Amino acid sequence: MSNLKVVFLNCTLKKSPKKSNTDALIQKAVDEYDKINIDSTVIRVVDHNVATGVSSDEGQGDEWPDIYKKVLEANIIIIATPIWFGVRGSVCQKVMERLSGGYDEADPTTGQFPLYGKVGACIVTGNEDGAHDVCANTLFNLTHIGCTIAPNSDSYWVGEAGPGPSYIEVGQKSLYTNKTIRFLVHNTAWMAQMLKNNPIPTNLKELETAAKQVSNLDGQ
Amino acid sequence: MSNLKVVFLNCTLKKSPKKSNTDALIQKAVDEYDKINIDSTVIRVVDHNVATGVSSDEGQGDEWPDIYKKVLEANIIIIATPIWFGVRGSVCQKVMERLSGGYDEADPTTGQFPLYGKVGACIVTGNEDGAHDVCANTLFNLTHIGCTIAPNSDSYWVGEAGPGPSYIEVGQKSLYTNKTIRFLVHNTAWMAQMLKNNPIPTNLKELETAAKQVSNLDGQ
Amino acid sequence: MSNLKVVFLNCTLKKSPKKSNTDALIQKAVDEYDKINIDSTVIRVVDHNVATGVSSDEGQGDEWPDIYKKVLEANIIIIATPIWFGVRGSVCQKVMERLSGGYDEADPTTGQFPLYGKVGACIVTGNEDGAHDVCANTLFNLTHIGCTIAPNSDSYWVGEAGPGPSYIEVGQKSLYTNKTIRFLVHNTAWMAQMLKNNPIPTNLKELETAAKQVSNLDGQ
Amino acid sequence: MSNLKVVFLNCTLKKSPKKSNTDALIQKAVDEYDKINIDSTVIRVVDHNVATGVSSDEGQGDEWPDIYKKVLEANIIIIATPIWFGVRGSVCQKVMERLSGGYDEADPTTGQFPLYGKVGACIVTGNEDGAHDVCANTLFNLTHIGCTIAPNSDSYWVGEAGPGPSYIEVGQKSLYTNKTIRFLVHNTAWMAQMLKNNPIPTNLKELETAAKQVSNLDGQ
Repeated sequence: MSNLKVVFLNCTLKKSPKKSNTDALIQKAVDEYDKINIDSTVIRVVDHNVATGVSSDEGQGDEWPDIYKKVLEANIIIIATPIWFGVRGSVCQKVMERLSGGYDEADPTTGQFPLYGKVGACIVTGNEDGAHDVCANTLFNLTHIGCTIAPNSDSYWVGEAGPGPSYIEVGQKSLYTNKTIRFLVHNTAWMAQMLKNNPIPTNLKELETAAKQVSNLDGQ
Repeated sequence: MSNLKVVFLNCTLKKSPKKSNTDALIQKAVDEYDKINIDSTVIRVVDHNVATGVSSDEGQGDEWPDIYKKVLEANIIIIATPIWFGVRGSVCQKVMERLSGGYDEADPTTGQFPLYGKVGACIVTGNEDGAHDVCANTLFNLTHIGCTIAPNSDSYWVGEAGPGPSYIEVGQKSLYTNKTIRFLVHNTAWMAQMLKNNPIPTNLKELETAAKQVSNLDGQ
Repeated sequence: MSNLKVVFLNCTLKKSPKKSNTDALIQKAVDEYDKINIDSTVIRVVDHNVATGVSSDEGQGDEWPDIYKKVLEANIIIIATPIWFGVRGSVCQKVMERLSGGYDEADPTTGQFPLYGKVGACIVTGNEDGAHDVCANTLFNLTHIGCTIAPNSDSYWVGEAGPGPSYIEVGQKSLYTNKTIRFLVHNTAWMAQMLKNNPIPTNLKELETAAKQVSNLDGQ
Repeated sequence: MSNLKVVFLNCTLKKSPKKSNTDALIQKAVDEYDKINIDSTVIRVVDHNVATGVSSDEGQGDEWPDIYKKVLEANIIIIATPIWFGVRGSVCQKVMERLSGGYDEADPTTGQFPLYGKVGACIVTGNEDGAHDVCANTLFNLTHIGCTIAPNSDSYWVGEAGPGPSYIEVGQKSLYTNKTIRFLVHNTAWMAQMLKNNPIPTNLKELETAAKQVSNLDGQ
């Protein structure tokens, strides 16, 4: 699988060189991808000037277009984020908003959104509670803009209820997390290879045309 | 694709013969699958005696095992549900709880959960608001027990904010819903065929063994 | 505060006499209410024949009306539930669906929903992750049917990521949980007393009449 | 109620002078508060340089401290936000992250968090779907840092499923939204007055001390 590429968008709130717990879990995935000859690119979003907005290019110093270019070149896109107040952090939400700009950039022939043929996954760390909500929303959003989600494509660590130590502090030795990060890596890699060999043929434009014939175009 | 099977679990709260808005949207999908020679089985869960619990067989008149057998025979599993109070209805939640029993029934050799190789999707109707939450949680849960989620594998109809007419009452002519139901059918069908031709090879048991070697087996 | 009443709806999936982790946390709250002379009623919903539906009385052996009567007599209503697949369990969802029947039973003069003047709270136990989602949805739903939510009116215990021991097994000694259960008891008690002494005067019917004058009654 | 103050944090992604649908709904609330002699302050967060972070002051040009000062002076705090990809927008999430800094600034005597005694509410606009998720999480987060939530303290407008016109475009004549904005205004005003007259007496520090005596301070 040496020609596959994976990109991680680390959505920690903390700029480099501060320690990122989310990065610690990303590195575990990077190591596993490395063992099967897949190159990883890790982008710490908060180190870049990513504008708030919902298009692919907000102009005026916006560095999202450079990041988005790497997303478009990758076969596997992994959104990695901390939890804040039980849900995905604001940097992650901003990334998802920017990715939603792809809705307007569908292929002119097939109508497929820009991430069709790519595989999505989600990595989460937090002191406690919220990982299911983060993964569910993030993976679902990725399917809307074209990603396929393989089975067991999330990996997370959270501590027990309430404030407490974070992932690096506890030593990163959770069996559940070590197990699921491996499931994620192997399932996303296999799925990406299969989608590379077998492009999704669905013509969304033709289906939309068929849908129009049975729809009230004024709403409802 | 004539050998593929799809099963819909209609999780309406209303027993037959009451009208089910969710069934109205299911029938649109059935028609589209029919056009590409895929047979559908629709199960209205509330018409059966499905026990509350989290195993695959709760005994004592529990009719879930019969339903679960059809789930295991299908290539595509579609959870269809109304929204109640902003989230998936209680019948849908009960179905997901019963499906989670599959965690304990992994393949003895590969460790794969029972729905590996199958494709999941979600259909939702409601008077208003809540479809994203329902789809996100439901599709995410399905990935945990083995399903693959193709792009654009949800279709829903909800009205504008507040109480109002339901899907049948408004005439079922929403372009968005008619479009997304077609995307769902074609993408799930193609993905199911591909997974049938190319079984997921990941050996979860071996990966778990590898994970144990770097984990603290007492937790954290 | 000896005239206040609290009712707990324990939404465990397990019938008596099976051990309920959720009940273990409920009992901590009962003890604290007892210290300030507030009587508790604990109802294990799954021991009763509660019908699926969205009205206050579904007829035919439905035992919800008896439970609902106790809800209406109480000053403090506490929804207590386990987490299943990251969200509130199906019994809890069924309870919320039944409570939503109260929307149709507003006071004829004020338009206030039946739980106006009451205080809501939420108690959650789970092996791992999901408490925020459960509490957020449940407390929000309670406000829609009339409850007031005092500060810090949720208490939960969940373990770290992945399967693991449950609340009773770990010994129930979490400081976070022991602390938040006390916050919940004292804040709900004070708020209930205050609302008993000071009924909410808002006339929803008059406000709806005013709203109609600036609205398009055909929707949007 | 002429001495009460309300602050709205408008979390639109769009800077002034672009039109904000969320602001259109805020203005309806402002008008209703005005009728009962309550002054409103509306802050469009994205017009200010609010740093990403989880403390009350991130230094270096961070304008959050000025906004937070107005939050602390208000009796009623209303988080107003658009929906993006089914959940609250990134600016709203950033605001909630910054508000969570208040956890570390509890009253030295009572242990109460800075927003104790204040009333929270939520206003949402979106093209479609997601309002319940936004309100549930946001109101729940507010209770954690001290706010009380009165009944019916959310108001939102969303269109039917799929892309479509926004709140300003449809003419702002939804009865549901016009009704709930009035419920919100009157219930928050009454609750804020009552909490001003009757400060919450709970001593969280003493309750924490009591909790410690029955807890394992090493976790679980």
